[in-house]
Amino acid sequence: MIKVGIVGGTGYTGVELLRILAVHPDVTVSCITSRSEAGVPVADMYPNLRGHFDLAYSEPDPAVLAACDLVFFATPHGVAMSMIPELMAAGVRVVDLSADFRLKDLDVWSQWYGMPHQSPEWVEKAVYGLPELVREEISGAQLVANPGCYPTAILLGFLPLLEQGLADPSRLIADGKSGASGGGRQGKIGMLHGEVGESFKAYGASGHRHLPEIREVLSTASGKATGVTFVPHLVPMVRGIEATLYAELKDPADFDRLQALFEERYRSEPFVDVMPFGSHPETRSVRGANLCRMALHRQEQSNTVIVSSVIDNLVKGAAGQAVQNMNIMFGLKETQGLEAPALLP
Amino acid sequence: MIKVGIVGGTGYTGVELLRILAVHPDVTVSCITSRSEAGVPVADMYPNLRGHFDLAYSEPDPAVLAACDLVFFATPHGVAMSMIPELMAAGVRVVDLSADFRLKDLDVWSQWYGMPHQSPEWVEKAVYGLPELVREEISGAQLVANPGCYPTAILLGFLPLLEQGLADPSRLIADGKSGASGGGRQGKIGMLHGEVGESFKAYGASGHRHLPEIREVLSTASGKATGVTFVPHLVPMVRGIEATLYAELKDPADFDRLQALFEERYRSEPFVDVMPFGSHPETRSVRGANLCRMALHRQEQSNTVIVSSVIDNLVKGAAGQAVQNMNIMFGLKETQGLEAPALLP
Amino acid sequence: MIKVGIVGGTGYTGVELLRILAVHPDVTVSCITSRSEAGVPVADMYPNLRGHFDLAYSEPDPAVLAACDLVFFATPHGVAMSMIPELMAAGVRVVDLSADFRLKDLDVWSQWYGMPHQSPEWVEKAVYGLPELVREEISGAQLVANPGCYPTAILLGFLPLLEQGLADPSRLIADGKSGASGGGRQGKIGMLHGEVGESFKAYGASGHRHLPEIREVLSTASGKATGVTFVPHLVPMVRGIEATLYAELKDPADFDRLQALFEERYRSEPFVDVMPFGSHPETRSVRGANLCRMALHRQEQSNTVIVSSVIDNLVKGAAGQAVQNMNIMFGLKETQGLEAPALLP
Amino acid sequence: MIKVGIVGGTGYTGVELLRILAVHPDVTVSCITSRSEAGVPVADMYPNLRGHFDLAYSEPDPAVLAACDLVFFATPHGVAMSMIPELMAAGVRVVDLSADFRLKDLDVWSQWYGMPHQSPEWVEKAVYGLPELVREEISGAQLVANPGCYPTAILLGFLPLLEQGLADPSRLIADGKSGASGGGRQGKIGMLHGEVGESFKAYGASGHRHLPEIREVLSTASGKATGVTFVPHLVPMVRGIEATLYAELKDPADFDRLQALFEERYRSEPFVDVMPFGSHPETRSVRGANLCRMALHRQEQSNTVIVSSVIDNLVKGAAGQAVQNMNIMFGLKETQGLEAPALLP
Repeated sequence: MIKVGIVGGTGYTGVELLRILAVHPDVTVSCITSRSEAGVPVADMYPNLRGHFDLAYSEPDPAVLAACDLVFFATPHGVAMSMIPELMAAGVRVVDLSADFRLKDLDVWSQWYGMPHQSPEWVEKAVYGLPELVREEISGAQLVANPGCYPTAILLGFLPLLEQGLADPSRLIADGKSGASGGGRQGKIGMLHGEVGESFKAYGASGHRHLPEIREVLSTASGKATGVTFVPHLVPMVRGIEATLYAELKDPADFDRLQALFEERYRSEPFVDVMPFGSHPETRSVRGANLCRMALHRQEQSNTVIVSSVIDNLVKGAAGQAVQNMNIMFGLKETQGLEAPALLP
Repeated sequence: MIKVGIVGGTGYTGVELLRILAVHPDVTVSCITSRSEAGVPVADMYPNLRGHFDLAYSEPDPAVLAACDLVFFATPHGVAMSMIPELMAAGVRVVDLSADFRLKDLDVWSQWYGMPHQSPEWVEKAVYGLPELVREEISGAQLVANPGCYPTAILLGFLPLLEQGLADPSRLIADGKSGASGGGRQGKIGMLHGEVGESFKAYGASGHRHLPEIREVLSTASGKATGVTFVPHLVPMVRGIEATLYAELKDPADFDRLQALFEERYRSEPFVDVMPFGSHPETRSVRGANLCRMALHRQEQSNTVIVSSVIDNLVKGAAGQAVQNMNIMFGLKETQGLEAPALLP
Repeated sequence: MIKVGIVGGTGYTGVELLRILAVHPDVTVSCITSRSEAGVPVADMYPNLRGHFDLAYSEPDPAVLAACDLVFFATPHGVAMSMIPELMAAGVRVVDLSADFRLKDLDVWSQWYGMPHQSPEWVEKAVYGLPELVREEISGAQLVANPGCYPTAILLGFLPLLEQGLADPSRLIADGKSGASGGGRQGKIGMLHGEVGESFKAYGASGHRHLPEIREVLSTASGKATGVTFVPHLVPMVRGIEATLYAELKDPADFDRLQALFEERYRSEPFVDVMPFGSHPETRSVRGANLCRMALHRQEQSNTVIVSSVIDNLVKGAAGQAVQNMNIMFGLKETQGLEAPALLP
Repeated sequence: MIKVGIVGGTGYTGVELLRILAVHPDVTVSCITSRSEAGVPVADMYPNLRGHFDLAYSEPDPAVLAACDLVFFATPHGVAMSMIPELMAAGVRVVDLSADFRLKDLDVWSQWYGMPHQSPEWVEKAVYGLPELVREEISGAQLVANPGCYPTAILLGFLPLLEQGLADPSRLIADGKSGASGGGRQGKIGMLHGEVGESFKAYGASGHRHLPEIREVLSTASGKATGVTFVPHLVPMVRGIEATLYAELKDPADFDRLQALFEERYRSEPFVDVMPFGSHPETRSVRGANLCRMALHRQEQSNTVIVSSVIDNLVKGAAGQAVQNMNIMFGLKETQGLEAPALLP
């Protein structure tokens, strides 16, 4: 049994980790920390966990965390980077669901997150935890930076095009839409049901923190500087991300082989599903499941390839991908604990 | 492996059965029938099942069904009763999720369902599949009538009071609220998102088919004729039922022992969770899970006990309870395939 | 032109007042106060008001308020009672949308609102602003206590029964359901879209502040102590209240004249609509409109009369009713500014 | 008083016309037709209209329609074109809310609507009813083709850029999102709440009928063939469209004058609101209002200008714009009957 600790378990990502780990046969959750809720049983805060966990939140205790095989960070940015060095030294492996180790470029990181980075040496060693891109590196990593939710949906959709050099890398557009759970579980007025319900809007349209993450990974994967425009939107639903991606084919003749290319790229991937050409993936088709489902489209008189890509922001976009990474890191079956179909309707 | 057939698998109840059975270790689904969709792969209609089932819908074939160990009926009322006698004769066991065998009183059945019953002899033998009430009978039954969704939430909330004779059985009020999936998957204008979204209303307030079902079971369980008023409501959400129950205590002093009584009644039940007195169960706390969660309330200056009871209408209110019944009928662990926590948020 | 001031205009009730007053031909809004947002244009906070108001929030200034013909309080409880005496002395008329002057019984008020009342003398003089009950008193009142949202829907549904003495006043049950805007516009975690969306629950089931208000008004109207059980619920929508009311008829023969009685009671009321017997009012049918729409139901074998009553909690349940009261107080046509149909769908 | 007839009044566009016209001071609705609902009072079908209209649906009668000053068509495509010639001959003016007269290119029309056009001579004479583009022509027109909902939001956002020749017309991308009322009021399974609720998806991504409409109008307005990629999406809400538009500036230096350009372009437009640079318009800020609200964005290292544009699909996207066109055609104040603020929250 893998002994797991969770730092920062009161948010949606934390509870989602518990939901998934509750039925994972190879894992014991030995601690879950929260300064503000120390002493409160997790099942009091999240009644869906009643009967599944006896655990209560505890103050973060370095000794307890150091005794874990794996620690998940489900914290706001800025927390993990201050605790990582000590855990690394203790030989603990970490999957960090926050943004602390996602960018290699420290200047860019500081610019977007508004603080200097406290653990530059581990930025270098951290592996960006998108298994479909760098599975091998993940298996041997001590520190995995779990990708952001939007980047997961967007990267998986763009990668086949850019890896093969088929699309103009300077003109990528990603129009993203997310349910409200992506905004976290803080008492912000803008995220009230009375504000979000029965309405739709763009946000962060002049610049969102996931933009540099998408840009850096795509540039690395394609070997070229990429120009991406990314606009996120807020959907009046709880879970789910859909990203509609637009890329210009260098050679329109390549349209004919795109579907085969995508299918081939992801043929052996258990958590990427390429639907038939012209399909429309729905976010509900991946609700609660660790899956990215996508489909390709072309419009008449156009060189623009359209990819619609959906994930559950809390699963393949966060906790599920973290467990997938854990499975890879510990040599388990990659799908362990992640096999259940999505909840539809 | 139990060989299972599903008759009428295009509706929400049918797909929910497939979702649950996809990860049930002791079951193989050998056929799923639909006259209208014969030949269509289930995963084409329900993309959440892509990768989980190769199965396509087929015309109902008596021989194929007769070769199953268990057949689930997920059909509109009127279908099962015409096919049951032949299956019974073939020794097949059946869990009928429709209303055909829920009422023992055939006159009442005909009055509410607008047709004569075609299989009265099997009405008599059918067992009403509420395991918390008649687990023993279910284990030996050949034909189980799976309870309605509202009745499940309402009966479980009222039973402890009526079994003990604590409440006035003539003045029971059940105010039920259901998500839109309870209305099925037919193209009815009244169930469009444009009609249901961002609105709330009562429906069937002058009489709903679940009323006689609730009345009959409560009368049997309490040994007295019961008077129940039941008003269902439509909630702008997809899944979930909440029922708020009002009963008058004969002796207000009994308030002090109600919580203990409910906890005792359901102590060994894996799928009923009595929350602390004064709690407010949320439908999302049981989303996707085979669970009825309830809590008790009392208001000042009042003899009225209030029970708030929640289920997922498609799980404990339909497909999950059907699988629970199957587990009981085949001597499996009752929780087999039904252990995952609810999807919250 | 009536010169109007609004105290506490940042919440949903405040903005709704502005929305309605924007097209009221006899009113000028001369000030709207908010300590926290002083200096901010209302149209910056509420973009639907762009182009309709140049007004900015201002610190509350007694002199400015004293120069108004009418002041609306759209504040949390406890604010109005501290400012009312001074305004009353200045001859200003007030419609208080908060709970400060709704209860005549000061002990009950203190018990439910957790503080002593600071203006008992004005409690006595305040008129409870339900025009359908006490229109005459409102027209001459200096201080009107605008009813709560639930009480408006519930009182209008019960009144015809209790005024005529047809129902047992000791056994009234009101099952209320409200959209999330009823919870106000504070950054509470429990009201996030991620918490409220796609879920349903009861809240305040052991006692809600609207219970004593309903009880007091019904007792006064019927001339008898009344026993009411009231359970509110949270609906995943923004606007709207539906209340399902249950009352036992003393004489079942009275069922035959109930519909006529309700129609007669509200025949001349511009803002109460009694639908045909057996109808199901939808909250969307009153969205944005100052209207209470209701219908009666009876179930077989039952003495219980069922009333389903709907309002928009922000309009007939708050700001619309406040403007209706203003119209009455200032001798305007009662429907002035309140004629537009509801927004459906 | 303008005597108005409505052909095809049972859908959401028809009821929305009635909602708006109910408080329009210069209009009498003399007939509303529906073959399927002939004889049914409109208020029975749409309870929000109770007390506002005594009118019942009637069979379409050419004589009655010919006696109107103006006829609105709120029909599926294919109906208006068969009735228009007769009405034109009778001197009646028409605002057609369907797609029959929106495209000048008859081949394109036939290709997308799957039938030959029956009234080519009136296609030529019809004026595309976007007042912000061709107000003068509308004022003198006998036949106005009311724009589609997506085109309205998208055209208004692109026009300033293309009229001035600032953007590359061959690389326009419009990512549109609509509430479910845009799908009409037919009993389609795909539009059930159980299908649409709590989910998000693209649809028509390989080609939607609004694409040629957008392309034709933009080409005419810019004097150049334009290449537009348009992907619509379905949002789990009832009303509202948001379109996020992406265009490449030919000269990045033009970014500095874009905001002023947009503000100037729409300065005198009563129904277009250009928000401050970097704002995020919400669909709820125009709910129920005849308004297009938009804002501009720029991301670092990018030549792409982003426009986020919102409308209520049933108002500025349909019935409201139709009434605006009527006001222009009959020399009324353009804002008559369209002044009320949006319903927020």
